[in-house]
Amino acid sequence: MKTRVFIFNFLFASALVFGSVQGRPLLLSTARPRPDDAASFARWLVSQSSWGVLNTISSEWGGAPFGNVVSFSDGLPDKGKGVPYFYLTTLDPTASNALKDQRSSLTISEYSLGSCGKTDPENPTCAKITLIGKLEVVEGNSKDAEFARTALFTKHPEMKGWPKSHNFQVYKLDIENIFMINWFGGPKPLTVDQYLHAKMNKITATS
Amino acid sequence: MKTRVFIFNFLFASALVFGSVQGRPLLLSTARPRPDDAASFARWLVSQSSWGVLNTISSEWGGAPFGNVVSFSDGLPDKGKGVPYFYLTTLDPTASNALKDQRSSLTISEYSLGSCGKTDPENPTCAKITLIGKLEVVEGNSKDAEFARTALFTKHPEMKGWPKSHNFQVYKLDIENIFMINWFGGPKPLTVDQYLHAKMNKITATS
Repeated sequence: MKTRVFIFNFLFASALVFGSVQGRPLLLSTARPRPDDAASFARWLVSQSSWGVLNTISSEWGGAPFGNVVSFSDGLPDKGKGVPYFYLTTLDPTASNALKDQRSSLTISEYSLGSCGKTDPENPTCAKITLIGKLEVVEGNSKDAEFARTALFTKHPEMKGWPKSHNFQVYKLDIENIFMINWFGGPKPLTVDQYLHAKMNKITATS
Repeated sequence: MKTRVFIFNFLFASALVFGSVQGRPLLLSTARPRPDDAASFARWLVSQSSWGVLNTISSEWGGAPFGNVVSFSDGLPDKGKGVPYFYLTTLDPTASNALKDQRSSLTISEYSLGSCGKTDPENPTCAKITLIGKLEVVEGNSKDAEFARTALFTKHPEMKGWPKSHNFQVYKLDIENIFMINWFGGPKPLTVDQYLHAKMNKITATS
């Protein structure tokens, strides 16, 4: 059984590195780690993704959990550090919610990378991750903010030109818990420490 | 200015109907409504999408807003009624959270449809919608559940074969508020009533 799983993973990973799956173009720059390498897999999914849904507690709608589509970056391409940074304005509810209640989560689906093929987005083998923690403003003149701006503007070039009058600021998610499903059998056990110190797969893709 | 916007919209809509944008294959079956037709636009976005992030209040993680990737359907293709149905198991935190606290939201990005081209996912012209309301179990023998199962299994064929031992049940989001951004100038004013009674665009796409 393990051999079969290994062969499947190998073929699947090869397809990701050297070609495309189900005819959809792939934008991945490093190989998909094996699902049982939870820490590397989680870091790969975060690093390859450019957007997700950032969830806060809504002060406007009676404390409802409010998800919002946001772009993010955890570093330069293939040099991500695992901590997601955002560029937000308080004209949007997400940032203003976070200033009142920092409890937050960021949810990302592998489906948007194009590497799930025809597998349903809710199928556990099409990976999904939710990073749960506190959404914090990053002090504008700090080294952290400088790193974040480079990370964000490299991955999202148009951000640099967004209206100054909107007062966009750098935020980051201080991760406290991780929920990831990337195979059958429920969420993968994964600590924040394991996630932050994972060794990343360095195989470079050709497509 | 209005003429320019109209021409832009016309060209953009034409690209969606008759071809593809930025070389990405499009799976859309009806034309993208004009952004200023908020109700039709919102219904189009929900109807064309197959997955989103469903948010609940986490009982496990101190009341944090917990987003989870889920598949959904609001009806047969191009016959959606606007109310999203889900197929969930209490083995997953989302369903068990909802049974304790129904406050919920579903967030969808146009980016995953492939119709935003190179526009950044956080750019307001790449549409995003969040439906805020209560996540409820649909009674298994009701007509509502029958409609939902047909809607779900048509859009997500593999659901029908998901393990019986997981006790998947039909849930729906009873929508109370709508947050949608699909152009510059902040969220579009849109009531639930306007959304549910929108006239849908019937132009059939060729790609």
